[in-house]
Formats: sequence, structure tokens, C-alpha cells
Amino acid sequence: MTREPRVTVWNEYRHEQANPVVAGIYPEGIHEALAAPLRAAGLDVATATLDEPEHGLTAARLAETDVLVWWGHKAHGEVADEVVARVHDRVLGGMGLVALHSAHFSKIFKALMGTGCDLKWREAGERERLWVVDPAHPITAGLPEMITLDQEEMYGEHFDIPPPDELFLVSWFQGGEVFRSGCTWRRGQGRIAYLRPGHETYPTYHHGEIQTLILNAVRWAAPVGAAKPTRGNQAPLEPLGN
Amino acid sequence: MTREPRVTVWNEYRHEQANPVVAGIYPEGIHEALAAPLRAAGLDVATATLDEPEHGLTAARLAETDVLVWWGHKAHGEVADEVVARVHDRVLGGMGLVALHSAHFSKIFKALMGTGCDLKWREAGERERLWVVDPAHPITAGLPEMITLDQEEMYGEHFDIPPPDELFLVSWFQGGEVFRSGCTWRRGQGRIAYLRPGHETYPTYHHGEIQTLILNAVRWAAPVGAAKPTRGNQAPLEPLGN
Amino acid sequence: MTREPRVTVWNEYRHEQANPVVAGIYPEGIHEALAAPLRAAGLDVATATLDEPEHGLTAARLAETDVLVWWGHKAHGEVADEVVARVHDRVLGGMGLVALHSAHFSKIFKALMGTGCDLKWREAGERERLWVVDPAHPITAGLPEMITLDQEEMYGEHFDIPPPDELFLVSWFQGGEVFRSGCTWRRGQGRIAYLRPGHETYPTYHHGEIQTLILNAVRWAAPVGAAKPTRGNQAPLEPLGN
Amino acid sequence: MTREPRVTVWNEYRHEQANPVVAGIYPEGIHEALAAPLRAAGLDVATATLDEPEHGLTAARLAETDVLVWWGHKAHGEVADEVVARVHDRVLGGMGLVALHSAHFSKIFKALMGTGCDLKWREAGERERLWVVDPAHPITAGLPEMITLDQEEMYGEHFDIPPPDELFLVSWFQGGEVFRSGCTWRRGQGRIAYLRPGHETYPTYHHGEIQTLILNAVRWAAPVGAAKPTRGNQAPLEPLGN
Repeated sequence: MTREPRVTVWNEYRHEQANPVVAGIYPEGIHEALAAPLRAAGLDVATATLDEPEHGLTAARLAETDVLVWWGHKAHGEVADEVVARVHDRVLGGMGLVALHSAHFSKIFKALMGTGCDLKWREAGERERLWVVDPAHPITAGLPEMITLDQEEMYGEHFDIPPPDELFLVSWFQGGEVFRSGCTWRRGQGRIAYLRPGHETYPTYHHGEIQTLILNAVRWAAPVGAAKPTRGNQAPLEPLGN
Repeated sequence: MTREPRVTVWNEYRHEQANPVVAGIYPEGIHEALAAPLRAAGLDVATATLDEPEHGLTAARLAETDVLVWWGHKAHGEVADEVVARVHDRVLGGMGLVALHSAHFSKIFKALMGTGCDLKWREAGERERLWVVDPAHPITAGLPEMITLDQEEMYGEHFDIPPPDELFLVSWFQGGEVFRSGCTWRRGQGRIAYLRPGHETYPTYHHGEIQTLILNAVRWAAPVGAAKPTRGNQAPLEPLGN
Repeated sequence: MTREPRVTVWNEYRHEQANPVVAGIYPEGIHEALAAPLRAAGLDVATATLDEPEHGLTAARLAETDVLVWWGHKAHGEVADEVVARVHDRVLGGMGLVALHSAHFSKIFKALMGTGCDLKWREAGERERLWVVDPAHPITAGLPEMITLDQEEMYGEHFDIPPPDELFLVSWFQGGEVFRSGCTWRRGQGRIAYLRPGHETYPTYHHGEIQTLILNAVRWAAPVGAAKPTRGNQAPLEPLGN
Repeated sequence: MTREPRVTVWNEYRHEQANPVVAGIYPEGIHEALAAPLRAAGLDVATATLDEPEHGLTAARLAETDVLVWWGHKAHGEVADEVVARVHDRVLGGMGLVALHSAHFSKIFKALMGTGCDLKWREAGERERLWVVDPAHPITAGLPEMITLDQEEMYGEHFDIPPPDELFLVSWFQGGEVFRSGCTWRRGQGRIAYLRPGHETYPTYHHGEIQTLILNAVRWAAPVGAAKPTRGNQAPLEPLGN
């Protein structure tokens, strides 16, 4: 019925070059691991990374992007404010954003949320169980009622985000914490999804159910195609006289 | 990407047989007027009416329905409770429901909402302006920022519904009222949309933008395809010992 | 600033009379255990139980009730439909409802939700951790960021409720499940809170933090005092002519 | 039951000194007109204005403020970024914010929303009708189901805000537009209300129902008193071994 969205996967791409463990799991970078299953589903996917000029997020690239997938972790501060403002404008104008894992602390996510976006965390390779709490949400299509990840970083509440418009996944962690792991928000004409899993030292993005989750989120976040709203001073549509 | 939903349009089909004004506007019934643009868009559409056996909503028919569109007005009380319960179960199981205009007072809508669903009204052929208040919502696809209906029945607040999960249209009426005219809710695995326009004595369902609105709502309400949740007594997934 | 709400605590009051374990924990009934800390906080509290005439919920009693607290478990089916309808009307008219634990399956809660309200469960005396996921919600006043209950019944997702208007508590269970344990909804002029804890074979309602939680919920659910909306046919407020 | 919040009313205070029409309506400034009915209700109210040092919003003043009321219009750009950041931190930490009318375009409101916050407008002295769409919301206490303002500036949709957590007022304007005029959001531990009315050239803040609305919003926005969430690296609460 509708065409598939054009995707750009953005990755910080630093861990893979500095940490042999991460390089072993994602030899071509997390961006390529994220792009591959989207391409296999028939989507048109480009990639962009921090160390490219303008971080690969030129006005031209964004203009051709329906949905931007974002993975960043240790270099959030190196993302230029002009690029963040450019992405922000595009999201308000209709481009979807799928923020993954530590992207919770990226400049673009924080600017769109308006909150601190902080949380609890622990790197202990513990078990995570992601429970579907809204089986009427399209991002849960084709998923079981629970996804198990044998080893993940823990993220715990309170997660300092605005109450999500929709909450569809809640995580259980072995160490005693819970987390709102699948959330959506609408901002301007844009649609935003946050998906928790994906610490760089675990093979999470090779997990088929997580790949389905990301594919669903990308499709969900595609631009809607409503008219751009008019702003500013307006003549009356109806007579004002008495 | 996904196949189009299979639709059943349900219509009370009484006004058209009793009132020449309505028969003049909808000579083949409101159900056929609703079905035609959905069929033109390529959807598979059946119809059902109150006076058919089981109101046309047999278990077999519902089993083959992805989205049920509902128009009723003066005979809500004649819809059998067993049929209402059957539809209710199917919605919780994933079938979409698009409730139109006076369906706000249907048994099925009230049962799903849990509230009185009452409102203000006036039949005076006045102008209605439907404003898009959420241009990131898929049901607004392809629509202008405002739809004008030159003659409609007025519905006014307070509309006694649960706060909608999503509110995308608010109506302005010439006589001084406003109304939440485009709303969605999720219930169980099912997706529900309410669209206000469509009083039987005005040609509202021949209006192209209203036809687009209904087509969008039908597509939005299609079953998602998540796993059916497990219920009841459960063995532990993790060891309970200390 | 505002006076304290007048409360009626409704209890099925059957387990306490049939099961010595429950009688040992709640010798005067769960209703008295719930009423005591509310009274200690200065609220005016009545009680009512299933086996009283009209279940103790006469029109006169409801008329003098600002907030109704509900605990029921094994005799939901014995609550008369007329009484359920009477309570339903009062909630839509502004009376608050605080539904506790197994009240998720009560007729009144299901009627207000419009969904099946089913869930997973396990009676294994396991540890529950209730995490605050919205520290801006008044029902979390005076609470720590997590409440630990050493022994409770497990309730697990998917909990078949409408997406709550507000979600402020999520439970972690030792056996691997999570649950949306503190939720609110607004229906008509009434305010509804659901609080998960309180299986009858554990001393949960003697726990000080749980008592604070219930007191907060009762205050939150008090009637607001807005004007009762007008319904039905309306004269125009503004001229309709052109 | 709870003490009244301590309030600071912040006003740009420029129109009153430059425009005789505004000075005629608010001879002591909009801040004093806003403060007077709050004081009459027994609240402790301070004021602060743009041209004071640090705009009157020192760390000490904010530390003693439970709820900040904000009115600004033509000098949003003159509010120092450091002061905006200070207020932002305080809101996330629990201070309430009541943003009035043209505060929709203030730096602090935009930072908290994450969106553009733009809208349609017209200065034509037309009639506004504010309809209560959620009579279960505390900010509607003591109000009629509709407030009429004979002369106001029009604000029209689409208003570029995040979908509000709660929507309780929708405005009708004589010229054909509608607007979401009473909205709330929760951010961090803070509570935010937006109330549309209050163009400086009309005597809106002398209107008793608007004064009730603002008083209700101030009380609603008061800090809740939940525990401050813990962040960062955490030891496990439960054993991680198998």
C-alpha cells in the first residue's frame, strides 16, 4: 500500500575501532549490522558516522532520509550543535527517529525530550527479559510476548523521559531493576521511537527478534504525509461582526 | 509492505428506507457509500446490516474481518447483546473498529469505552471545520490542515469518552461549540478509531476528504500481528530460592 | 486548602472467615486493616462488605462517599449487577475508585475499563520490587524510589487494561515477570487508581509504604468539583445565519 | 491536608511601561494582577521581572519557589540562557511551571517541550469560548462547563507542542479556529500547565473564572514530594549468578 521508508543509520563508530571485543562482534561497525536486516527486508538504507564531514548528516542526506536510526555512546559531546539543530528541524518536519540504547543521552534525543534522560546502569552481562505490555502496538508485530537477551547491560528506572505517548515494552533485569524499553513520542510532524537494547559488547543486534523490533520501529516512524501546518497571522475564516 | 485489511461495513440501514431525504443522498444505503471508496482503493469490503440474521455479524463473518466500520443511530437498542459480546471479543483479539458519527452511542462503542459516551447535539445544518491537531498521526495522511463541511449536525463537548490515546481532529461549529472529532484508543490487541462526521441527512460520506479520512482510519486500525498473550497460572522463569 | 475525602472501604470479606492464615493476618478483616491508616490520617472512613444488604453499597452510602476503595477476589460473580451499575454511575458522576490487587477482575473495574483485565499470576511467596517510574505523580508522595515486598503473589504482563492515563509504578518479580502496578484513568467526572499489591495471605496492608500509597491514591481520586456537563439538544450560542 | 505552594510570578513587564492601553488595564503590571487573587486565596506570592538583576530569578529565589508562573511576549530573546538553564533544572527537580498565553514562545517553555511551539494568531478582539473537555481534571474545579471571553487574541491549531499528558480546555474562536487551551505535561519531577488566555490589551486577568483557572493550575503544579531518583552505576539488588 505505501512504499518502504528510506533509512539512514547513524553510528558513532568509535568503539569498533578501539575495542577488539566490539570489533569482534561488529567487524564492519554497528551501522552495518543494523543496516543489513533492513536491506534484507527491501528497504533503501544509507549509513553515516561521526567522523565523516558533517557527521555524514548533510542537508542533502537528511532531505533524502525518511527515518534516521541513531546509535551513539561515548562521543555525544562531539556531535556539532549545528548538525543537531538540522536533525531536530527535520524531525519536527516529519522525519522519523529511532534512538537505540545509549542514544538516550545523545544531544538530539535530549533536545526532543526536554528532560535529562538519565537512568541507572550496570555492565554485568546479566539477563534481560523484554515483555510486551501493548500487543496492539505495530512495533510488536511478529514478536513473541517476551524477548530474552542472555547478556545485556542493565538500564534501570527512573528513566528521565517525558511520559511516553505509547509504552509497548518493559524490561526485567536479573539484578532487580525494570525499565521502559520500548517507547514512542510524536513531536511536530515527526515520530520518535526509543528501543533500549544494544550495548556494544554483546551481540544484541545479531538477535533476530531485536532485528524485527528495529524494522518494525523504522516502518512505524515513517513520515505520515499530512499537510504542513500554516503558522502566523491569519485572516478570519468567519465573519467577526455582531 | 503489508496486505490491505479485509473490511466489513456495518450499517443500521433504517433511515434510508424510511426517510426520502436520506434515501435521496444514499440510494443504496450508507454502507454502500462507505464501501465504494474503500473498494476503489483496492480493499476487500463486505457489508452487513441490522435486519440480516445475526445482523450480518456471524462468527464466520467476523473471523474474516480485519476492520469493522460501524454506522448506527436510532436502533442501537435492537442490536442483540450476544452479537455485541461477539464483536467485543473480536476487538480485544485484534480486529479493528472504526466507529462513525452516531455510533458513539452504540452498545459496542459504550462497552469498549466504559463511559456514558453522551454529548451535546443540534440539527441545524451548520458549518463544521475539522482542524488537524496532530499532523504526525497516520490518519491525517493526505489531508489538508482543515476540512470544511458546509452542513452538518453539531456535536459538542463534554463528550463522555475516556481521554483518547491519540487526538488528531478537533471540530469547530458555527453555533459556538467544539468537539474531539478524531480519536483513537487501543483495547486488548484491537485498535479503535472514532470519526465524528456523517449525519444521515447531509452528503458527508460523498466528500472526498472524509472518504480519505475513513480509508486512513481503516488502514490504521488493521490488526498488528503481535503474539496472543498467555494468561493464568505461570511457572517461574527464574529460580525463586534465596 | 481542600477538605479530606469521605471514604468507603469495600471488602469481599470471605477469605478472612474461611482461611485461618488470612484471619491470622487480618483478624478484623482486610477492610479494617485498610481503614485504620486512613482514619489515622484524619479521614472519615466507613466500611461495607459483600454479605451486607445491597453489599453495603446503598444509594445513601454512595451519596456520602467521595472515594470508594475496593478489595474482592473469589466472589466477584456474587456482586449484584444493579449495585455494579449504581457504583458505575457514581464514578462517572465524580466518585473516586481505588481498585486493589484482585479487584482487577471485579465487575466494576471491568465495566469501567472495557477490556478483559486478565493477567498472569503465581502464588509462590516471591519478592516484589515496585519501582517509581513517574516521580512527578502525586500518588508517589513520601515514597522511596522503590518499595520491596518480601513475599507477594506475582502478577505478570500482558495486563489487559486500556493504556493507563498515568503509569507511576512498575513491579519486578523474582520469577522473571514485570507488571504495571500503579495506574490511573479518568472516566466521566471520576478518577480511578489501580494498585497491584495485596494478596490476602501476606501482610501487605500492614506495610507502611503500602499504606502511604493507598492514602495518596485516595486523596488523588477525590472528586474535583467541576460543573456537571450539560447534554442533549442545544440552542446555538452564536448566530448561524450567513 | 497539604500546605499551599509558594509562588513566584514572573512577568516581562515591558508592554505596561510602553503601551498606555496595557498600562490602563494593568497599572501595576500583569505580575501584580496575577499575584493579587493568589494572595487573596492565602498563597505566599513573590514577583520577578525581566529587568531585575538575573531577571529576578536568582538561585535563592528559585530555591524558595514551589510554582513559577510565567508571562512573556516581546522580549523572549532577552532572557539569559543561564537563567533559562537554572529554571529548567529546577522544573526537572520538582518546581511547578504555569506558562500563560504568549509564554508558549518563551525559551523555557520551548526547552521543556522540545518542539517549535508555533501557532496561528490574530489580534481582532474576537470572542473566545473555552470548553471543559475533561471535567475530571483538578484544574477545572469550580469552573462552569464553558468560559466566555468577549475579547481576546485568537490562537489557532496546529499548536506545535508534544501531545499533552492531559488536555482539559479547548477554545472556540469567532473567526473559525480552535485551540488546545488547557494542557499539562510532567517533566522529571516537575509539573507544567499551559493556559492560553491573557493577551495584554484585554482585561483577561481581571476575569474571575480565569483567576480561578490560574489558582487551580498553581495548586495542581505544586511539588509532589517523591524521593529524588538515584542515577548512575548500580550494584545489583539480586544475585546475578546462575
